[in-house]
Amino acid sequence: MAPTSETLTAERILEATEEVLRRHGPAKATVVDVARALGVSHGSVYRHFRTKAALREAVTKRWLDRTSGELSGIVAGGSAPEVRLRDWLAALFAAKRRKAGDDPELFATYMVLTDEAGTAVGEHITDLTTQLARIIEAGVESGSFTATDPEASARAVFQATGRFHDPCYAREWEQPGVEGEFEAVVELVVRGLHV
Amino acid sequence: MAPTSETLTAERILEATEEVLRRHGPAKATVVDVARALGVSHGSVYRHFRTKAALREAVTKRWLDRTSGELSGIVAGGSAPEVRLRDWLAALFAAKRRKAGDDPELFATYMVLTDEAGTAVGEHITDLTTQLARIIEAGVESGSFTATDPEASARAVFQATGRFHDPCYAREWEQPGVEGEFEAVVELVVRGLHV
Repeated sequence: MAPTSETLTAERILEATEEVLRRHGPAKATVVDVARALGVSHGSVYRHFRTKAALREAVTKRWLDRTSGELSGIVAGGSAPEVRLRDWLAALFAAKRRKAGDDPELFATYMVLTDEAGTAVGEHITDLTTQLARIIEAGVESGSFTATDPEASARAVFQATGRFHDPCYAREWEQPGVEGEFEAVVELVVRGLHV
Repeated sequence: MAPTSETLTAERILEATEEVLRRHGPAKATVVDVARALGVSHGSVYRHFRTKAALREAVTKRWLDRTSGELSGIVAGGSAPEVRLRDWLAALFAAKRRKAGDDPELFATYMVLTDEAGTAVGEHITDLTTQLARIIEAGVESGSFTATDPEASARAVFQATGRFHDPCYAREWEQPGVEGEFEAVVELVVRGLHV
């Protein structure tokens, strides 16, 4: 059943956009395609997203936010900061691997979109490194980590572990031995933060 | 002056191949193109490289070996292992940046070739991590580093610093702030190796 204009929320449009992207790839997913998939006029879509670029940026942001949303629970958790740091890095790797492995075509599509969407990606990286900085701060407070500038340390940890979350390495994530490599890099990084 | 067949060494052919690649990109640089550039018959080139694939693999290996050759002097140097480690990582970053920045078209060409040349790239990474392992071993012997398995630690250090040598980040190497990011990651990694 096509939704009526009353139920046409931004979220509903973004869901349909992802579905159009999943089926037709990044070249499609214009406002007109999405309106057709929803059975509404393109005017109703434009009321929520004024341009195709805004729609594509929003659907990319939603996709990226799903990962940061999953991880935020670990930041707020009650375990020791070092445990939280290890859990957070493992959860980030698992989330990215799942995205790349479960639906490789949608992942490839989002790679095209993230290449276009400079702002969404920059904000996503800031979200993630801010979460990391909170964990590092907690470790400094509890006396287990040392960091004169937790934001800078968070960026260094994020970059040092890039092989296990940056999409440019997606092909490596299914190679044998990748788990051991991940453990070795996490060990090095955690030791690097220790007092 | 075109070289006579007496002077047609493998090195001379590889030099000409790089020149052909520089001028015409990765689609060119067949044995025939290289023979034409040298003013020799393609038979003389085939005596050194039996296939186009072998020629391309050899020119890629030569390009990669230039970097490992540059770095090997640091491994053998007499300074403290931590100083050598920092110097080595800085020299690797500088070498890759120079290759990417000074001749972006040739760099892009070699990116296509390294994608084809699985073996040459694997060997290059082994060369580099073996150099790193020697430095880490020296640090363990002198009592400044800890590593139960220096080869594994070397791979972890190499991967943790990938942002500053892996060609997939070449675009980032000219961004403002990249020097500070490099310093922060190196600091984290060196601290991670400390006893």
